[in-house]
Parts: sequence; structure tokens; C-alpha cells
Amino acid sequence: MIIVLKPSATKKQVDHVIERVKQLGLKPMVSRGTERTIIGVIGPEDILRVKNLEVVEGVEQVMPVLQPYRMVSKEFKPKSTVVNVKGVKIGGKKLAIMAGPDSVETYDMVMNTAKAVKRCGASILRGGAFKPRTSPYSFQGLREEGMRILHEIGQKTQMPVITEMVDTRDIDLFEKYADVIQIGARNMHNFELLKVVGKSKKPVLLKRGLAATIDEFLLAAEYIVSQGNFNVILCERGIRTFEPKTRFTLDVSAVPVIKKLSHLPVVIDPSHASGTWEYVAPLARAGIAVGADGLIMEVHPNPEEALCDGPHSLTFKNFKTLMQGVTKVAEAVGRTV
Amino acid sequence: MIIVLKPSATKKQVDHVIERVKQLGLKPMVSRGTERTIIGVIGPEDILRVKNLEVVEGVEQVMPVLQPYRMVSKEFKPKSTVVNVKGVKIGGKKLAIMAGPDSVETYDMVMNTAKAVKRCGASILRGGAFKPRTSPYSFQGLREEGMRILHEIGQKTQMPVITEMVDTRDIDLFEKYADVIQIGARNMHNFELLKVVGKSKKPVLLKRGLAATIDEFLLAAEYIVSQGNFNVILCERGIRTFEPKTRFTLDVSAVPVIKKLSHLPVVIDPSHASGTWEYVAPLARAGIAVGADGLIMEVHPNPEEALCDGPHSLTFKNFKTLMQGVTKVAEAVGRTV
Amino acid sequence: MIIVLKPSATKKQVDHVIERVKQLGLKPMVSRGTERTIIGVIGPEDILRVKNLEVVEGVEQVMPVLQPYRMVSKEFKPKSTVVNVKGVKIGGKKLAIMAGPDSVETYDMVMNTAKAVKRCGASILRGGAFKPRTSPYSFQGLREEGMRILHEIGQKTQMPVITEMVDTRDIDLFEKYADVIQIGARNMHNFELLKVVGKSKKPVLLKRGLAATIDEFLLAAEYIVSQGNFNVILCERGIRTFEPKTRFTLDVSAVPVIKKLSHLPVVIDPSHASGTWEYVAPLARAGIAVGADGLIMEVHPNPEEALCDGPHSLTFKNFKTLMQGVTKVAEAVGRTV
Amino acid sequence: MIIVLKPSATKKQVDHVIERVKQLGLKPMVSRGTERTIIGVIGPEDILRVKNLEVVEGVEQVMPVLQPYRMVSKEFKPKSTVVNVKGVKIGGKKLAIMAGPDSVETYDMVMNTAKAVKRCGASILRGGAFKPRTSPYSFQGLREEGMRILHEIGQKTQMPVITEMVDTRDIDLFEKYADVIQIGARNMHNFELLKVVGKSKKPVLLKRGLAATIDEFLLAAEYIVSQGNFNVILCERGIRTFEPKTRFTLDVSAVPVIKKLSHLPVVIDPSHASGTWEYVAPLARAGIAVGADGLIMEVHPNPEEALCDGPHSLTFKNFKTLMQGVTKVAEAVGRTV
Repeated sequence: MIIVLKPSATKKQVDHVIERVKQLGLKPMVSRGTERTIIGVIGPEDILRVKNLEVVEGVEQVMPVLQPYRMVSKEFKPKSTVVNVKGVKIGGKKLAIMAGPDSVETYDMVMNTAKAVKRCGASILRGGAFKPRTSPYSFQGLREEGMRILHEIGQKTQMPVITEMVDTRDIDLFEKYADVIQIGARNMHNFELLKVVGKSKKPVLLKRGLAATIDEFLLAAEYIVSQGNFNVILCERGIRTFEPKTRFTLDVSAVPVIKKLSHLPVVIDPSHASGTWEYVAPLARAGIAVGADGLIMEVHPNPEEALCDGPHSLTFKNFKTLMQGVTKVAEAVGRTV
Repeated sequence: MIIVLKPSATKKQVDHVIERVKQLGLKPMVSRGTERTIIGVIGPEDILRVKNLEVVEGVEQVMPVLQPYRMVSKEFKPKSTVVNVKGVKIGGKKLAIMAGPDSVETYDMVMNTAKAVKRCGASILRGGAFKPRTSPYSFQGLREEGMRILHEIGQKTQMPVITEMVDTRDIDLFEKYADVIQIGARNMHNFELLKVVGKSKKPVLLKRGLAATIDEFLLAAEYIVSQGNFNVILCERGIRTFEPKTRFTLDVSAVPVIKKLSHLPVVIDPSHASGTWEYVAPLARAGIAVGADGLIMEVHPNPEEALCDGPHSLTFKNFKTLMQGVTKVAEAVGRTV
Repeated sequence: MIIVLKPSATKKQVDHVIERVKQLGLKPMVSRGTERTIIGVIGPEDILRVKNLEVVEGVEQVMPVLQPYRMVSKEFKPKSTVVNVKGVKIGGKKLAIMAGPDSVETYDMVMNTAKAVKRCGASILRGGAFKPRTSPYSFQGLREEGMRILHEIGQKTQMPVITEMVDTRDIDLFEKYADVIQIGARNMHNFELLKVVGKSKKPVLLKRGLAATIDEFLLAAEYIVSQGNFNVILCERGIRTFEPKTRFTLDVSAVPVIKKLSHLPVVIDPSHASGTWEYVAPLARAGIAVGADGLIMEVHPNPEEALCDGPHSLTFKNFKTLMQGVTKVAEAVGRTV
Repeated sequence: MIIVLKPSATKKQVDHVIERVKQLGLKPMVSRGTERTIIGVIGPEDILRVKNLEVVEGVEQVMPVLQPYRMVSKEFKPKSTVVNVKGVKIGGKKLAIMAGPDSVETYDMVMNTAKAVKRCGASILRGGAFKPRTSPYSFQGLREEGMRILHEIGQKTQMPVITEMVDTRDIDLFEKYADVIQIGARNMHNFELLKVVGKSKKPVLLKRGLAATIDEFLLAAEYIVSQGNFNVILCERGIRTFEPKTRFTLDVSAVPVIKKLSHLPVVIDPSHASGTWEYVAPLARAGIAVGADGLIMEVHPNPEEALCDGPHSLTFKNFKTLMQGVTKVAEAVGRTV
């Protein structure tokens, strides 16, 4: 922490701050300039509450210097993490392609979609059984029944399945039926849910919150990792901005920024970011070009009939074309599909 | 819904759209202009999936016309809702002042704070027992023990208590100890939590999510109301913007906008919005001037020692001064404290 | 500046940074912690280019400590500035109320509006002659003719006039006809324009850019002040956020933040912020309650017929009601109208 | 336009709206539903002021249906525009690479940089002579002297030059020395500047404003095109969001969105978007993968010594590596460098 004092701070005020820092068991390093005094505090910042010193008279601001997370950081573990989902690796040279319908609607539609996406190169099947919908009147998912369908189809097609968990009470169901537990953007700050999946051994795909900074995103991952579960995959899925032409703004810069700070793999969700199927393919290519370790996308046999998120779902044909484009870009950046 | 067709849409494409609308049991009203055709759809928009028509060839965009919520809307209930919390009314002429420490730390500090805020005019005691903290290494609250302390002090000081719930599994605890259940900004989109408190009879204070539009905020309230619980108090607590000088940007405009759309009472949280105690008093005055029905604020016997959110906590003295200012503004806008 | 080095920085890298700082004529203060080294730099930060050290190997980040502006800061001039516009004072106990039509349309409509707003307590007449319109096909203003009309009506009604300047080439016209030169939000970063009005002796009302941080806003004011013109009035008029229900989000917190940092007066524009006349009155009250020194608002004899910004223009009757509400709130916060 | 009436609108109010629309010379198409009436207005929306009807009693909202721009739209000109800058084509199969120092500092540094970037595949030389700097105390550019240096080096190295214009009064200088006139992000809404370059025959590179929506960006381009200058290149350079780890958030989605709406070429500026040289290469690759027609980047012989924007300037070596990566991605998407 750096504690910046006001130019008007009295000697007594400065001494009080120094005393407080020492009381917290830390070592203050005082630099007295001509205009103002600055106090550097070296030590484990998060267990102390130096931030509170902002309310002390004479203090102008308190600036953190260290990153607030530990176990997800590159300093803690310099080597990149590769998450292994029943043999499918996420974070290695080969990209992880996750695809499937937004929601599990019927056995047949999921089975058809699973076969179609597998044929095009997808290695993990996605599908929602518990749907966090903005409106209480929208389709809320098939719930347990949906989990069973997805699980069965995953086994038959030999694809691990990823599906979203929205309530701490459902953990047993996810332990039983899911291969990867997805935490959605709207639950990134649902810390109780993070703790529960942190105690699981299942890999977790954590989506960035709509308005979460990268630091907050990594701290949410830290919640999971600090409970013992290191199998975390981060997912950039668009942030909320003022631009209305896309549902969210895909923050591709987040990929190299996270790669610099953390050892965890990062994938891109171009479907929810754009909200429009026409933009999914170019954004998927951009995601791979910028260095993402994979993609998660929505594919539907007939988007016009989808119970949820029809507008950004890809048809089988469009998904095939997308995968051809992605494959070429992957090769250009030294990756494979 | 308004369905706007592309200038290049063929007759066949237009007919397909009209057919689809009819299949959904709705009545299309077709306006053919010189450049493009527009189709108005009258009917219960949310049960149909007209939005999916965006993927149909020839369609340019689909624009909703009606508000997506029902029971929280002024059209549904033109008269303003007054929530009654053990005799304290929220939404009437008298403002509801909720104050207390960010976190329940010890019996004595809560008791001292409760007495102090009551003396200055607060009628509801706030205090967190379950703390949703950005970092897993920060103080997470006293949990059940904190609930008991808060409840006991509420009874002794004859103030109803408000405290935050973060996990669906805790509902029994909240039924027992809380007078108002708070849903925090980070859980506004935790729909399972909303459904659980919607089945409770306890009043609920719902905070606006960091990046929630007013429509999404009202839809979150609709989740609660649609389960049968009409005792919902909305709380504007700052939204995330690019400005770093304040922790969030207090969106005071949200108050008159919500008052126009909904019958629910609205309060302001100037503490979390600003993140700095010096700005709490002017923002509290602005909140009352703009038409809010009350305030929720953090007060601490010694902010320098607070286990959480010290920087924006008010001392007893500052809270007293704040209340004097708020009282005058309240009178200026025809309210009382 | 605080220069934070990476934990992996070598002694050679640290020494290179120290050497660079000394070459720039500054004094480095080195704090060596167990994990990393931090170098404080005391000196006139803006003339040096310490920021470039971010590209030096071994450097993690460079954090500025001092505010980047000087002459607009409270440290430079602790006493609040009161701008005197032909006897009307902005920044004193009495609030400055500026009102008038968005655009000068005809002599009669401006005269009628001037009389109406004066009757209700406005002391400065606003009206646009050069209109910065988002679309090239929208009404662009009466230009010089509009300036003359406004000037004449200002003299006849004995109200100083404020009008917007959009091009450096027009300065002579503004010297001749304007009493306050307005720099609009879209030109806040038009630095050549700022320099030109900085060389004028006319008071300048500077609006905050749609996406300008408070620091950038104050730096824009510094452009004007550093040219010799201290008569600057700052105006908060709403920032761009994700919320679509209002045209912009009025950032009322900016008022106390600026008051803490700068000696310049601050006014609020509730008309452009909201974009809807119904929200103008509550936002005007909030602006005064939060501590603004005045208001600037749009009033039109018949908003339905306005050539520009009809939706947020007030009728004479609505303006009268607004002023009654504002007067009461002003008294509540110790100000007069 | 779609005019949505309130459920409570009286027949008289509805008739008044219909009458007003007719007075404006337009044809109202009235759809009376069970709950509310909707009026479609077919006609040239921008010359009418239907938007003002929002203030009429009984009207709930007025929604525009058509895009507000004309000549920049794909409907106006379905074929993509290729801008020819002295033989270098922007918008064709071959990507346009523009590179050079942020500011023209000395003849030698520009010459060295020009040769270096040309060697790596750049075809247009960039360099600022008039610098729009946030602080009045920062280096403001060599101005006319800088223009002459850039022009001379452009001729000697046979590279067209691009440089930023910030004041309408400088147009003659730009006519003489520039090959492409750049309008910076902070001047995107400086409409007088847009009109002046719209009357020039020089190609114009228009950068998106920090907080400009895509619609506003295209309207700014319309200002130029409507004056007769069709040689406009659009440039996405990052928008302002809440994320502090990058200087701006590069909105790669803007590329396919603009390509769908407009015939104008679009390039990406990964340097200013990220603010950090390490992120420039991945963002450049993402820009090409998403479909941009070129890149504009900052390269400096010694970023540590740069007078402006050192932190995101690339060394010659880093630029070379970047170009190798970009070339591969370009091939993957069917383009050449």
C-alpha cells in the first residue's frame, strides 16, 4: 500500500498514521517530500485493513500496490494450468471447442445437436438445464430432467458435458450429472456458489460478470481455487457498455491481460457477447487470434423455434462454416482444433 | 412487438413472418411503406417468442413495445405501495431512515451504534452478518451469531432490523431473525434467491445490480412479487461507470424514472455509492431532493477500526450532522423524517 | 510518481530505473521490500516523462500520486472562485439560474421566453445560435443572426446571455455578442477551442464531456485557466452509461468531488442529462441539494414545435413550478435563488 | 417512426397526434390494439420532428425505425468503398498498414522509423504534428514544422503520410502536406472540423469517439460524406468502459457491425486502445481476424524516450514480430499484407 498524505497534514497526523501502520504489525517506509509525505507499507496487504486509514485526518488516499489475488496469479504458479476434462484438455496447444443448445429442450434436439457439433470439431457438449432468465415469465429450463438428458447424451456421444449451476442446493445433482460446472456471468459474484463449487472436484467454467473488472474476475476465481479446486477455466463473454448494437461488448483485450496475470486457461463466448448470430463467427475468430484457449458457442437445429436465445444461436450449417474459419486462424497462431 | 423488415425482403419472406406470427396465436398488423414493411404485433409479448424472428431471413429487427414486467408496474397497480415493517412505513410521507454498521462485529459496537442512530432519527437498524466480499481473504461476517446479536439488539432498542441474505439455504435463519431481508447488488441476478424470498412474507429490500438497467432491476423485483411477496423496497446504490473518483456512480435519475414506471417504494444508499464518507451527506440530500422514500447508510463507532467498509462509514457525529441536513431537505420537498 | 518493480526485476534493471529518474533531474526514494522494490519520485511530475518507464524491463507499473492539474486546484487557490457576469455572481451564496430555449429560433420566441424565465427567477438567458447536432441533416442554428437576436434581447431584458461556441474561427463574434461563452460537452476535448477562449476575457461555461473523468474535466479547465482566463464555470450535464431510460446519467457526485479538488464554481444541466422534461425538476432539486452553484435549463414556449431538443424542454408553466421547488431546496441548504 | 400511446390516452389525444403527423406532410398508419394504440409513420424521418411528439400528452414513446444516416449506408451504396491514397488502397483484399511514431519529434527519428516500418510491410506513414493532449503542460507537437518533416520523409520513402488535424484554421496546411487527414477520437464530435474536411478532396481517417455509439460514429462520417468527400476510412480505437487494466476497451464487434451497415472501410488502432505495448500485437491479430481492412499503430525507435505515448509504442523489433503474426492471420481470413 502507498499512503499519500495531504500537503496540509500536520506532523501529529503523520505520526498517527505511522503509529497505526506499526500497530498492524507492518513496516512503514516514510518519504518526506517538499510538498507532501508518502508512506509505503510493505507486508501482506489483504490481512491488514490499511484501507481504513483513508478516513484518518490528513490522509489523501491509500493506493494498493500488490494484486489482491494470490493462488490464481502467475507469481504463485508461473506455469500455465491445463484443465483435464475426461481427457479433453483446456489450456494446451489444442483449442477446446464447447458447443450445443442454449437450453436442453428435448432428448432428440440435444442428440441431433451433439452429433452435429461433434462432426464439426467440438469436443465438449454444452446445454442449460437451469436457466437464469431476466424475466420470471421466460422458460426456466427442464431442471433435473434436463441434467439427465444431457448426461445420457454426453455418454452416448462420448463428449464431456458442461451445464450451468445457479443454486448452492443443487450441488449433488451437478456432482452426479455434470462434467464441467458452469458459473454464469450473473452469478460471478454469488460467493456462496463459488465456495460450494470450490469444494467440488469437478472442473468449473467461470464466466466474467457483466460489470466485473479483470481484478474482480480473478478474485472470484480465487474464491474457487482457495477452497481447493484448481480446475478453473475463465470465460470472457462480453461486458456491459453504452453500445446498443451488440448485446454486450466482447472485451478481447481481457485475454492477453489475464494471460499476463494468471496461469488459468481462458475461453471466449462469442454467442452471448454479440447476441446476434451473424457476429458470432467473426468474434470467434478474433477470440482465437487474440490468444484464447477455446470457445463456447450456442448451436440449435432451428433457432427460429428455440425456447431461449434464438437470435444468437447458430444453425448446423453456420456452425460448420464458423469452424472452418476458426481452424485456419488457429493454425495461423500456432494452435490446433 | 414491432417487426421491421429489410428493404430487400421478398414477398415470400414477409409472408413467412406473417404466418409465424399467426401460428403463435397473435394478430399481425401489416404496414407496407414504399421502402420497407413493418409488422405490428398486438398481444401478450412475453409468452410468445417473437424475438426469435430476428433470425428469419428478411427481418431487420424486432423491437419490443410493452414493458417486460407486469405486477410491479404502475399500470397493474396505480397506487403507490407502502411497505409496513413492524409499524415503520416505507413509501409514505415520512422517510424511512435505515442506519447501522456495515458488519455486525460485536454486541457492544452494534448496541452503541443502534442507540446513536436512533437518537438521530433512524427507524430501522442495518447490519451485515453474511458478507459478500470481493476477496475470499476478507472478513466474511459473524454469520448466524451475527444474526442473533442483531435480532436481540433490534428488540431491545425497538428497531426493526435489516440484514443481507446471500444463500438460499439460509432462509430459515432469516425468517427467524430478520425484519427486512436485504438482497445485495451482487445478488440482484441470483434468481433462485429472489424466488426464495418471494415465497417469504418478510419485506425485501432489493438493491440494483452494478450494471443492471432499470428494466432489469424491475424484472428482478417482478421475480419476487410474482411469487406472492408484494413487500418489496427498491434501492438505488450506484452503478458502475468509467469514473474512478467515486466507487460507483449514484444514479439519482433512477428514482423519478422508477416512480413513473412502478408502484414500489425506492430508497437510496449513498454510502456504497460513493465509497467515501465525505460524499455521503451531499448524496443523501440529493437522494431525498430527487424523491426517494428513504435512505440506508453505514455508521460506525470508529471507522478507522471497521472490519469492512471503513472508508465510507460515518462517525456518530457526522451522522448527526447529515440527519440535520436531510431533515431540512425533506421538509423542502414536503416529507418528514 | 510511484514506480513499482516486478518481483523478478534484477538489480541491474532496478539500477537502470534509478539512473533514468536521476537523469530527469528528480530524486528517487527507494524502498526495498522482501518481495519487490518500490521507487517514489518526488518532483514536478508532469514535465518529466516518468510514465514512459512503464516500457522499461523490470517495471510493473507507474502510478501518479499528484493531481495532474495545478491552477484549477484548491491547493493552488484555496478560496472559492466567484465568477462575475455583468453583476450576476456565480459561485456565491445566491444560485445562478440560466434558462432559455435550446436554439434561437425567432426574435419573438426568444423574447417571450426571456421574459418568462426572468419572471420566475432566472438571471442569465441561454440560447444556441451555433448548434452542434449529431446529424448533419438536423437544424444547425441561425448562426450570426441568432447571436445578434440573443444579444439584443439580453440587453432589452437586462439579462447577460450565454451561448455555445463551436469553432475557433468564430471568436470575434463571441467577443462581440456573448456574455458567457459555452463550450459544449462534445467540444470539451477540442483543445484548440479551449486555448482560444482561454485568451479571451469573457467568462466560460465548460461542460463535462460525455465520457470525461473528473480529472480530464479539470484538465480541460486547466487549458483555459493556464491561458490567463480564470473565469471558468464547470457544468455537469450527464455522462454516458449503459442505462437507456435517460439520455445520459447525471453524475451528481461530481459536484462534491469537484468542490473538494477545485476552487471553480459548478452548475448542473438537468435538461440534457435526462432528455425528458418530466425528470428535469427532480434532477434540478437534486443538483441544488448536492451543492451545485446554479442550474442551466431549457425552456420553450411550445416544446412540441421546438426545432431542437423539444422532448426535454420545459413549458413556462413547468419552469415556474420547478423554480418553486428549487427555491425551497435552496433554502434548505443555505442558499438563495 | 413508431409512436406508442399510453393505455390511458384519450381519443382526443390520439386524434391530436394523428393530426400533427399529417400536418408534417406524413402518412400515419394507426393500429388500435386492445390495450394501446400504435401509430406507424412512413416517410423521411429526419426532416420531420416527430420526436417532439414525445412531449404531447398521451404519448408514451417515439421509436425511430430507420437508420439516421443515408450516404454512408449500405442501402445507399451496396458496394464496398475502396479509398485510394496515392495508389495505396484501403478497403480491398490487401490490408492497409499504417505505422509510425506518435509524434514527429525530429527528422532523423521519423526517417529511421519510416524506413523500419516500410521494411516490415507498412504502406502508410503516420506521425502527429498537432497533438491533442489531455494536459496543457504536455508536449503539444512541432506543428507546421512537424508537417513539413513528415511530408518530406513521406516523399523520400515513397509512403503516403497520415497526420491529425485539430483546428479548422489549419486546413490549408493539411491540403499542402497531408495525404490522409486524421480526425482524432476527441474531435469526432467537432462538427465544424468534419464539415471542413468534408469539403476537402483528401481522404479522411475518422476515429470513433471514446463514448460514441456506432450510430453516432456513422453520423459523424455522414457529416463528411454529405459535404462531398466520400474518401472516408473509419477507425475503431477503443471505447471508454469501467475496466482499468487497458486504457480503453477495443470494441472488435464494431467491425462486423459497421460492415453490415456501411460501405466504408474500417481499420483498427490497437495502440491507443490498449495503452500498453504488450497487448498491441494480440489486438492487431484480433482486428484482422474480425475483418478489419487495416491497422494503424505506433512505432518508436526508443519508446523510453518518446515525447508522447511511450508506454504503448512498439520498438522496431516488436513491430517486426507483430507483422509476422498479422501476416499469418491475414492469410487465414483470405487477405494479404
